[in-house]
Amino acid sequence: MEVQIAVAKVSKYAVSESGDTLEVVERPNGGLSVVLADGQTSGRGAKAVSQMVVRKVIGLLAEGVRDGAAARAASDALFTEKQGKVISTLNIASVDLNSGTIVLTCNNPAPIFIARGEQIDCLEEESIPLGTSRNVRPLITEIAIEPGLVIVIYTDGLTHAGKRRGLPMDVGATISSILEDQDPTPQVLADALLAEAVSLDENRPADDISVLVLKVTSRIGDNVRRMSVRLPIDGKWQ
Amino acid sequence: MEVQIAVAKVSKYAVSESGDTLEVVERPNGGLSVVLADGQTSGRGAKAVSQMVVRKVIGLLAEGVRDGAAARAASDALFTEKQGKVISTLNIASVDLNSGTIVLTCNNPAPIFIARGEQIDCLEEESIPLGTSRNVRPLITEIAIEPGLVIVIYTDGLTHAGKRRGLPMDVGATISSILEDQDPTPQVLADALLAEAVSLDENRPADDISVLVLKVTSRIGDNVRRMSVRLPIDGKWQ
Repeated sequence: MEVQIAVAKVSKYAVSESGDTLEVVERPNGGLSVVLADGQTSGRGAKAVSQMVVRKVIGLLAEGVRDGAAARAASDALFTEKQGKVISTLNIASVDLNSGTIVLTCNNPAPIFIARGEQIDCLEEESIPLGTSRNVRPLITEIAIEPGLVIVIYTDGLTHAGKRRGLPMDVGATISSILEDQDPTPQVLADALLAEAVSLDENRPADDISVLVLKVTSRIGDNVRRMSVRLPIDGKWQ
Repeated sequence: MEVQIAVAKVSKYAVSESGDTLEVVERPNGGLSVVLADGQTSGRGAKAVSQMVVRKVIGLLAEGVRDGAAARAASDALFTEKQGKVISTLNIASVDLNSGTIVLTCNNPAPIFIARGEQIDCLEEESIPLGTSRNVRPLITEIAIEPGLVIVIYTDGLTHAGKRRGLPMDVGATISSILEDQDPTPQVLADALLAEAVSLDENRPADDISVLVLKVTSRIGDNVRRMSVRLPIDGKWQ
């Protein structure tokens, strides 16, 4: 099998820096974790908050701390620093090779979609962002790694897309229509969701948007780990 | 323009864990850094060393510390802990959007190849691994970000490939022949170099091998950052 992970990420229109931070870290006991945070507001302030949260979480995960405990620690640190005045959402998606599961840790009101074949489930239990109070519990979901599994996680920029014009995005329906058509790679799915949101915002995203897709395939091939990153730059230093 | 980064990574034959660690971190002032370390020996011990080095470096980079200072700090920390008995190579490749340059920091005897159009240069000045003594200096090279630039960085598994059979790999010639044929994506180039090395080792890599390729293209497109990861898993927990 192969776990494939893809991310597509854009910043709010006319703001050079996305307030969303996403990083990937190797787990000390095997596998990896993707950590995504969306700091309140946008621009540099939001970036500083989401970077602080992600940094705290990946530091703890790298030491072997469990995902839920890392999320609670980041929440306490943020609450201590900002006294509840600044909050941040957090999603951790861990491929845990010890247990053979994907562990989803969520402090984000935005739902998570989980598709297995034709069936698409939506995790939308109440989930509270970090830094809101002293006792923030993450929502934790554990799913067996099996071929055909697709998981879609995103920040609220996707939920808000089009709302300005009264045309909110139906994320579940969009995922369903893309999955029906083909057997898309996770990058195709992430790109398509982001493109739909940006188009609903008339190419001027009203908020930072990040989309993270995990897919498990039955591919048996070489034993090579691969990663690629594409960073558009506007050459403003020139 | 767009900076594209690709990594292909395989572990030594019959060793489940690669001793090489590679992570990507956002730079607080814009851009990102890729950090690659290869700990001495192989398996869990090497992994612990390379993870410690990478973790130290990305923690400092995230705080805004400059690359060279981060490399020296990691060397001092390793030397203090292991008293020179365990060493690690380190490469940092930073896309610095402040200066409009790619900054290469190197504590690795393996050379770095830099291609611009038909011209391929090889950086092979003496470069000493971390943890060897109290005063390890990194080799630092700064290159303007411009379309057509290709940079290839790797761990010594690539250099050693085929040596067992007296058929060492000519990395420069391999890069040159791949670049001549086509305008390969960085993933194609990284995959081809790794495949050549694995084939010279008769599909049983004698060491962990990691290949990192950066490429600057003139692409003007959407302003979307993208990342993808592919993690083969053998399902041994089942």
